[in-house]
Amino acid sequence: MKNCVEVQDKLHEECGVFGIYSMSGESVSKDIYYGLEALQHRGQEAAGMALSDFKGGMYNMAIKKDIGLVSEVFHEDDLEHLKGNIGVGHVRYSTTGESNAHNAQPIGMNYIKGTLAVVHNGNIVNTDALKVEQMKRGSAHYTTSDTEVIAYEIIKERVNSKDIEEATVKACKKLRGGYALLVKSPRKLIGARDPLGIKPLILGKRDDTYILASESAAVKAVGGEIVRDIEPGEIVTITKDGIETVSRLQSSTKAHCIFEYIYFARNDSVMDGISVNDARVSAGEALAKVKKVDADIVVGVPDSGLAAAWGYSKESNIPFAMAFYKNSYIGRSFIKPTQNERQMAVQMKLSVLENVVRDKNIVLIDDSIVRGTTMRKLVDMLKAAGAKEVHVRISSPPFLYPCFYGTDVPTAGQLIASEHSTEEVRENIGADSLEYLRVEDFKAMVGDLPLCTACFTNDYPIK
Amino acid sequence: MKNCVEVQDKLHEECGVFGIYSMSGESVSKDIYYGLEALQHRGQEAAGMALSDFKGGMYNMAIKKDIGLVSEVFHEDDLEHLKGNIGVGHVRYSTTGESNAHNAQPIGMNYIKGTLAVVHNGNIVNTDALKVEQMKRGSAHYTTSDTEVIAYEIIKERVNSKDIEEATVKACKKLRGGYALLVKSPRKLIGARDPLGIKPLILGKRDDTYILASESAAVKAVGGEIVRDIEPGEIVTITKDGIETVSRLQSSTKAHCIFEYIYFARNDSVMDGISVNDARVSAGEALAKVKKVDADIVVGVPDSGLAAAWGYSKESNIPFAMAFYKNSYIGRSFIKPTQNERQMAVQMKLSVLENVVRDKNIVLIDDSIVRGTTMRKLVDMLKAAGAKEVHVRISSPPFLYPCFYGTDVPTAGQLIASEHSTEEVRENIGADSLEYLRVEDFKAMVGDLPLCTACFTNDYPIK
Amino acid sequence: MKNCVEVQDKLHEECGVFGIYSMSGESVSKDIYYGLEALQHRGQEAAGMALSDFKGGMYNMAIKKDIGLVSEVFHEDDLEHLKGNIGVGHVRYSTTGESNAHNAQPIGMNYIKGTLAVVHNGNIVNTDALKVEQMKRGSAHYTTSDTEVIAYEIIKERVNSKDIEEATVKACKKLRGGYALLVKSPRKLIGARDPLGIKPLILGKRDDTYILASESAAVKAVGGEIVRDIEPGEIVTITKDGIETVSRLQSSTKAHCIFEYIYFARNDSVMDGISVNDARVSAGEALAKVKKVDADIVVGVPDSGLAAAWGYSKESNIPFAMAFYKNSYIGRSFIKPTQNERQMAVQMKLSVLENVVRDKNIVLIDDSIVRGTTMRKLVDMLKAAGAKEVHVRISSPPFLYPCFYGTDVPTAGQLIASEHSTEEVRENIGADSLEYLRVEDFKAMVGDLPLCTACFTNDYPIK
Amino acid sequence: MKNCVEVQDKLHEECGVFGIYSMSGESVSKDIYYGLEALQHRGQEAAGMALSDFKGGMYNMAIKKDIGLVSEVFHEDDLEHLKGNIGVGHVRYSTTGESNAHNAQPIGMNYIKGTLAVVHNGNIVNTDALKVEQMKRGSAHYTTSDTEVIAYEIIKERVNSKDIEEATVKACKKLRGGYALLVKSPRKLIGARDPLGIKPLILGKRDDTYILASESAAVKAVGGEIVRDIEPGEIVTITKDGIETVSRLQSSTKAHCIFEYIYFARNDSVMDGISVNDARVSAGEALAKVKKVDADIVVGVPDSGLAAAWGYSKESNIPFAMAFYKNSYIGRSFIKPTQNERQMAVQMKLSVLENVVRDKNIVLIDDSIVRGTTMRKLVDMLKAAGAKEVHVRISSPPFLYPCFYGTDVPTAGQLIASEHSTEEVRENIGADSLEYLRVEDFKAMVGDLPLCTACFTNDYPIK
Repeated sequence: MKNCVEVQDKLHEECGVFGIYSMSGESVSKDIYYGLEALQHRGQEAAGMALSDFKGGMYNMAIKKDIGLVSEVFHEDDLEHLKGNIGVGHVRYSTTGESNAHNAQPIGMNYIKGTLAVVHNGNIVNTDALKVEQMKRGSAHYTTSDTEVIAYEIIKERVNSKDIEEATVKACKKLRGGYALLVKSPRKLIGARDPLGIKPLILGKRDDTYILASESAAVKAVGGEIVRDIEPGEIVTITKDGIETVSRLQSSTKAHCIFEYIYFARNDSVMDGISVNDARVSAGEALAKVKKVDADIVVGVPDSGLAAAWGYSKESNIPFAMAFYKNSYIGRSFIKPTQNERQMAVQMKLSVLENVVRDKNIVLIDDSIVRGTTMRKLVDMLKAAGAKEVHVRISSPPFLYPCFYGTDVPTAGQLIASEHSTEEVRENIGADSLEYLRVEDFKAMVGDLPLCTACFTNDYPIK
Repeated sequence: MKNCVEVQDKLHEECGVFGIYSMSGESVSKDIYYGLEALQHRGQEAAGMALSDFKGGMYNMAIKKDIGLVSEVFHEDDLEHLKGNIGVGHVRYSTTGESNAHNAQPIGMNYIKGTLAVVHNGNIVNTDALKVEQMKRGSAHYTTSDTEVIAYEIIKERVNSKDIEEATVKACKKLRGGYALLVKSPRKLIGARDPLGIKPLILGKRDDTYILASESAAVKAVGGEIVRDIEPGEIVTITKDGIETVSRLQSSTKAHCIFEYIYFARNDSVMDGISVNDARVSAGEALAKVKKVDADIVVGVPDSGLAAAWGYSKESNIPFAMAFYKNSYIGRSFIKPTQNERQMAVQMKLSVLENVVRDKNIVLIDDSIVRGTTMRKLVDMLKAAGAKEVHVRISSPPFLYPCFYGTDVPTAGQLIASEHSTEEVRENIGADSLEYLRVEDFKAMVGDLPLCTACFTNDYPIK
Repeated sequence: MKNCVEVQDKLHEECGVFGIYSMSGESVSKDIYYGLEALQHRGQEAAGMALSDFKGGMYNMAIKKDIGLVSEVFHEDDLEHLKGNIGVGHVRYSTTGESNAHNAQPIGMNYIKGTLAVVHNGNIVNTDALKVEQMKRGSAHYTTSDTEVIAYEIIKERVNSKDIEEATVKACKKLRGGYALLVKSPRKLIGARDPLGIKPLILGKRDDTYILASESAAVKAVGGEIVRDIEPGEIVTITKDGIETVSRLQSSTKAHCIFEYIYFARNDSVMDGISVNDARVSAGEALAKVKKVDADIVVGVPDSGLAAAWGYSKESNIPFAMAFYKNSYIGRSFIKPTQNERQMAVQMKLSVLENVVRDKNIVLIDDSIVRGTTMRKLVDMLKAAGAKEVHVRISSPPFLYPCFYGTDVPTAGQLIASEHSTEEVRENIGADSLEYLRVEDFKAMVGDLPLCTACFTNDYPIK
Repeated sequence: MKNCVEVQDKLHEECGVFGIYSMSGESVSKDIYYGLEALQHRGQEAAGMALSDFKGGMYNMAIKKDIGLVSEVFHEDDLEHLKGNIGVGHVRYSTTGESNAHNAQPIGMNYIKGTLAVVHNGNIVNTDALKVEQMKRGSAHYTTSDTEVIAYEIIKERVNSKDIEEATVKACKKLRGGYALLVKSPRKLIGARDPLGIKPLILGKRDDTYILASESAAVKAVGGEIVRDIEPGEIVTITKDGIETVSRLQSSTKAHCIFEYIYFARNDSVMDGISVNDARVSAGEALAKVKKVDADIVVGVPDSGLAAAWGYSKESNIPFAMAFYKNSYIGRSFIKPTQNERQMAVQMKLSVLENVVRDKNIVLIDDSIVRGTTMRKLVDMLKAAGAKEVHVRISSPPFLYPCFYGTDVPTAGQLIASEHSTEEVRENIGADSLEYLRVEDFKAMVGDLPLCTACFTNDYPIK
C-alpha cells in the first residue's frame, strides 16, 4: 500500500469525468487516457474507463478501473483491448483513508435494456434516502459510491421511459446536490449537470467527435475546441445524429462552486465563461486592497498561490518574486514517514531560495489555510532563510462550514479557522500579519457569476 | 497475461467452495487460505474470500478476490486485514478463454437487510430465465456469473421471509441444476446442496468451529474432522447456536456427478461415503475384466491414472510399474509456445523411464481421453523408448454428451470419441488396443450410489 | 520476500548447468529456457542465462539473471531480446538463508580477450586460497560465489595461453573439489568435469546442435539425444568445427556423488551409465534384505521414496501401495507460517488415504532422514489414520559427516543421526522399527561405479 | 519497459552523488533516500546505495541498486535492511537508449583489503586507456561504466599505499576529465573533485554527521547545513576523527561546468559560491540587454526558463507573466506515443493561458534550444492562442561542440544550431525574432568564476 509523504494540508475534491463519442467510429481509448491525464489533478486515487464496442452484431462493453494514477492503471495493451467509439472515464479522489478498488468508477452494469456505464463528480445529498428506496425494491449494491445509486435510479426509470435520455432526466429530477454526470449506453453518451451548476461540465468538439469533460483543459488535451459549458440543469445526449439538449431542469438560483476557482481547477481552464487564472489573479488584486502592507516582495506558494501573488503584485506595485523551489519528484513514495519526517515533508517538497528572501519583508500568498501546519512550516523556512517579516495573505475567506456537495473539507475540529480567531491563527503560524480575502470581494474573482459560498457563509443553496 | 504451456487436454470443473464459522470468535482468514489451497485443484483462475467482522457495534464485510492462484491473490498482510470469524472462500476455473476479475467470487453485496456474500460451485440451467425476471424487477448485474443471479434471488425472497435461511430456501427452490452453495450473512453461514446431489458439499468440525467445503480434504487441511456430507437438497444454517437443518428439498432421484470420482476430486477425499481413491482403484479392477491383455506391466499416467492402474494390476496380476517422471515445475509459464513447442509440452511435463518400458508389453491407464492429443503423444513416447506394445485402458466411458451442470466439456467436435469409433480413436492414438470402462461397470466404482451419467449416456437427471 | 511453507527437511544441492551451441546459428534462448526448467529441481532460488550474439561485426554478450524460478525470471520478451546461437544457463539453490541476486549465475564479464560467461555446479574446496591470490593480483569480486573465482583463474591463464581452452585447462588443474563447469567465450562453449567425477555432466546432440547439461533429462527436454557422459577430468570444447576433447585431467580414483542417485537427480536421468530410477529401485531391493518385517503393504513417501518402495515391494513380495496424496500447489507461499502452521505444513502438502492404511502393518520408505521432523509427522499421520505398525526403512545410510563438494548438509547438531543412535531416532520418530540401507549395499544401487561416500563414512576422496 | 512521453528535447547529465557518515553511528539509509530524492532531477534512470555495517566483529557491505526512480527502487523494508552509519548513493541518467541495471551505481566490490563502494558523476576521458591497462593486469569488468574503471585504479593503488586515502589520491592523479567521486571503505568516506572543478561537490554537516553531495539542495533536504564546496582537485576523507583534506591536485586553470548554472542544478542550489537562481536571473538580465524588443509581457518556459524570464523582466521593465500551465502528472507513461501523439506531448505537458497572451507581443525565454522541436511547438501554441508576436530569447549561447566531461549533448547533426544559422533557426521555430545569450555575457551569470564553455566555444580545458 502506498503511503504519501505529500503535504496533506489541502482540501480535496472527489472526481473528474471525461466522455467522448466519435461519430466516425474511431477508437477513443487513447483519447480517454489523455483526457484523464489532463484531469489527474482532480483525483489520484483511482482511474477507470468504459467503452462501447459493436462486435458480431452486438454491443459489448469493455471496462477497466483500478487504484492508481491513470498511467499506473492503464498500460499500452489495455488501450488496445479497450475498444469502442463511445466511452466514459473517471479519476477519483477518495475521502476515506483506505483506498478501495470497489469504489473506482465507471460503474458499469447490465440491466434489462443492455449495458450502462456511469461516471459522476459531485455529491448527492439525498443518496441515503434513494438507496433505501432502491433496496426496498430489491437492489444489490456492490459499492458505497453514490454513483451506483444514480445508476440504479436511471435503470429503474428506464422501464417506463421511451429511451435512456428520458430515464436520465427522470432520475436527475430526484437527485439533490451537485453533480456532473456522464451516462454511456450502448449507442449514446449523455451528460447532465445539476440545476445549481455546482459542479462544472463542458462540451468540446474535434472534427466529428464530441467531448464532455469536467474542465476545458481536458478538451484541449485531446486536441478539441471548446463549444460551450453545459448549462446548470441541462441534460444533453450525443447520438449518431449529433448533440441535442433533452431537458433543462429548473432552479431559481445558480451556485457555482467557489472552490473550483480558488484551487480545484487547472489554472488554464475556463469555467462558465470565467478564466480560472483570471479569477485567481483578480483575487490577488482584491487581496492587495484588504490591508496595505509595506513589503519588499510578493511571493506565492507554488503552485496554488502563484496566480494570486502575481495579481497582488500588480495591484500593490510590490515586486513579484519566486522564492521557492518545488521538487516535482516528491509526493508518491513507499516510505512511511516518522513524525519527524512528516514535519520535514514540506521542506523536502519546497525549499527556499535564500538570496531572494534574505533581509526582505515578504508578502506570502496562498489560496487557503486548512490545518495550518504547512503555512507554519513555510513561514519558519522563510524566517530561517533570513526574511525579516512575513505577511501572510490568503486568497479565500476562512473555511468555517462543511461542504455537502462533494468537497472533502475536514471536520470543524481540524479546520484551524473554525476554532481560532484570525489573530490566534496568525500567532500559530508565526506570521507578522494575516489577512484573508473577504467574502464581499468574491465578485472581483468571478464578476457576476452566482457562487456557492456555503463553506464560508453557512448559506447553503439547497436547504 | 499468463499463458499456460500445460497440457490442455483435460476436462475442467468450475469451482471449489469453503465456508467456516468460529463460534468462539477467532479470525478465520488463514483457515480459508489453507482450505482454498487444499481445493486449488478445482480451479486455478481466480480466488477470493469474504469475512464478517463485528466492529464498532456494526457488522462489516471484508472481501478480496482476484485472478490468480490462492498464493498469488492473498499476501500475508491481506490475511491480517481480512478480519472476521465467519467467512466464505472460492477458487474458480474459468470456462471462457480470457480471464476476468469481475467474475471472481465471492459475490459480495449490500442490500436492504445488510451484507451478503455468496459462493457457488455448479451450474444453474435456468439462469437466463431467472436473470430476465430479475432485470424486469430492476436488477443491475455486474458479472456474468450465475452466482450473482442466485444472490439476487435470495435478496428478493429476503423481503418476505422471516430470516435469511427462509429466503435461501425459497431461492433454492427456484434453482434448477447442480450446486453447492454457501451464503454468508453478517451473523450466519448457510450451506445448500442441490436436490440431486450433483455437486458435493461436506460438513466438518474443529473444536467449536464449523466448516463447509467442496471436499473432505479441505476440512482435513485445516485440522478439522469430517462430520458428514450435506445431503442432496439439504440446507443447513450455522449460527451462534450451532448447526441446524432448515430444509430438505425433495427430489425423486439422486444423481451424484460421476466426474468427481473419475478425476475432479482429490484422491484423498471421501464423498457421499465413498472414498475417491477406492472408487478409482475399483474402476481399474473393473477395467481389468473388460478385456484381458497379455502384458508385462501396468502403467498409470501421473497423477490421474495411478490409482486405476494400481487396481488394474491387482485384479490382473500384471505387475504395476512407474514409467513416467513428472516435472512439477512446469505448467504455469509466461512463455507462449509455438505450435512445435506445444507438441513438446507433454514431453516436458512427463518423461519416460526407458529401462522400465524397454521391450515390454504395456497396459497404459488414464482416466479419460478428451481430444486425444496427450494420449497420442504418450503412446509415441513409450514406443520411442522401446515399448513393444501399448494397450490403452481408460477408467471411464467415452464422453459423448455435454454437461449442463458445471463441467466444462468441450463441444462435440472437440471430443474425439463423439466423432470417431473406438477403433478409429485407437488408430489415431497409435495404441495396440483400446478399451474404455463400460457404463455398467460404474457400480464397481461407487457401489449403489446413484450417479449422473448423462455425459456418457445422454440420460440427464433434470429434464 | 517469499517465505516457504514447504517441508525444509531435505538436503539440497546448489545448482544445475545447461550449455548449448547451434552450429547452424539458430537462436538458443528458448532451448536454454526449457533446459533450465528440466533442471529446476536442482535449484529454485535463482536462474540465469548468457548468450553470444554476432552483430555488426562484433560479438556481444546478452545476459539475464535474477532470483526466482525459471518461469519467473524469464518472460517471453526476454527470450526475444536474449539473442545468440551459443549460450549457458544456470539454476541455483542458495545455501544461505537470504536470497541474493548478486550471486545468481552466469558470471559474465569483459576481460582483455573479450567476453566470458561461466556457470558451475559444485564446490571448490580451495576457493579461499585461490581468491586471496587473485586479490593479491588486484582482482575485484562482486559476488561471494566460487564461480567468480573460477572465472578469474581462467582469465588470468588466458594471457599466457594460446586459446580459451588452454586457459580453462590450466585453471581446472588448480581447482580442488567437485565441479561441472561450462565456459562460454564469444565463439566457443567449453565443458569441464572434475577429475573424480563428483558432479555430473552429460553431452547431447540434436541435429547440428550440441548440448551439455547436468542431467540427461535436460537433453531430452529440448529434443536431444544422449551422446555420452563427459568423463571425470575431461575438458571438451565445442566450436564451429564440432566437439573435441582438449584435456583429460588425471586422478587415481573416481568418486561419483552418491547423493545424485539417492535423490538429487531426476528419476528419469541416466548418469555415468546408471539409470537413476534403477539405482533407487535396487536400493529398495537391498533394503528389503536388511531385516525382514511382517507387513501388509509397502508405502513410499512421494515423490522421493516411491522408486525404492517399489523395489522393496518387489523383493519382499509385500504389496506396494500408494497411501499419500500430494498437493502440488503448496510449497511457494507468501504466508509466513506460525509455529503451529509449520507443524501443519507436512500435513497440508501430504495427506493420508485412510482406507489404504487402516489396520495395516506398513513398511514406510523414504530416501533419507535429515532432522527427523518430517518423518515423525508422517508416522503420526499414518497412525492417526489407523495404521497398526509403521516400520520405517531409509534407502540410504545415516548422514554423519559434512560434504565439502557442494551438498548443503546441515551441521552435525541438526542431523538427527549424528547425535542419536538408531534406536533413539526410531523412538523419536515414533516408528515401530527403523533400518537404514547399509554402506556395503551401495553396490546394489550402482554396480561397480566408484562412489564418494564421505558423508556416511568420513572417507573423503580429496585429502 | 517504460516509454517516456516527456519532451526529449533537453540536454541530460549523467548523475548525482550523495555520501554520508554518521559519527555517532546512526543508520543513514533514510538520509541517503531523501538525499537522492533531492538529486532526482540529475538522473531518473537508476538509483542505488551502499552502506557499511559493523556486525559480529566484521564490517559488511549492504548494497541495493536498480532501474527506476528513487521511490521505485527503494521500498520501506529495503531501508530497514540496508543498515550502516556510512553510505554512498547515486542517481543515474543513461546516455544509452536502453536501460541497463548492470550499469547502476554504486559499484561495490570485495578486494584484498576488504569492501569498497564507489559512486561517480562525470566523465573520464582516458577511461579506455586505463581499462586496457587494467585488463592487461587481469581485471574483469562487469559493467561498461567508467566508475568501475576508477574503482579498479583505486584497488590497484591500494596495494602499495598506506591507506585507502593514499590509493584514492594516486588513482585520481591518473584520471583525466571531470568527476565528483565518492569512495566508501568499511570505515571511511572519501570525496574527490576533479582539478578543474568541472563537476560540483559540496560538504555539509548535521550535528555529528558529515554529508558530501552533488548539490547543496541535497544537504538541505536532510536537514544539514552547508559547510563549503570541495575545492577543485581537493580530496577529503571522513573518518571517526572527523574530516581532513588529504590532497589538493593541482591545475593551472579552473573550469566549472556552465551547464550546471544554465539548467542541470536545482534552482535553490548554491555552487562554488554562486546561487544558481541568481545566475539564471542575471542571465536573463544580460539577455535583456542583447537586443531591445518592444513587447507587452515576458514569459518563461516552465520550469527551466522562469528565473531568466524574471531577470529579463526586471532589466527590461517589460511585465513578467505566467502564460503556461504545466501538468506535473505527465512524463512517465507506459503508453508508447505514435508520431502524432509525440507531437502532442509538449501540448499535454504544457498548455497556454489564453487570456494572458491574447493580442500580446511576447518575449519567450528558455534556457536552451537543442533540437528545436519543443520551441517550435511552444511558439505555435502561443500564436494559436492569439499572441501577436513571439520573440524568443535563450539564456545560453548556441550549442555547437560536444562535451567530453559527462553531459549528453546530441551529436552535431541533431543540434539545430550546429547546422543552421540563427536566422534559419528563427524561421524554423516560427519566432518573430531570436537571440541567444552571448558568450561574453557569461560573467553576468557567475561573476569571476572560471567556467568551462567548450560546448559553445570549442575551447576545451583539457587538451
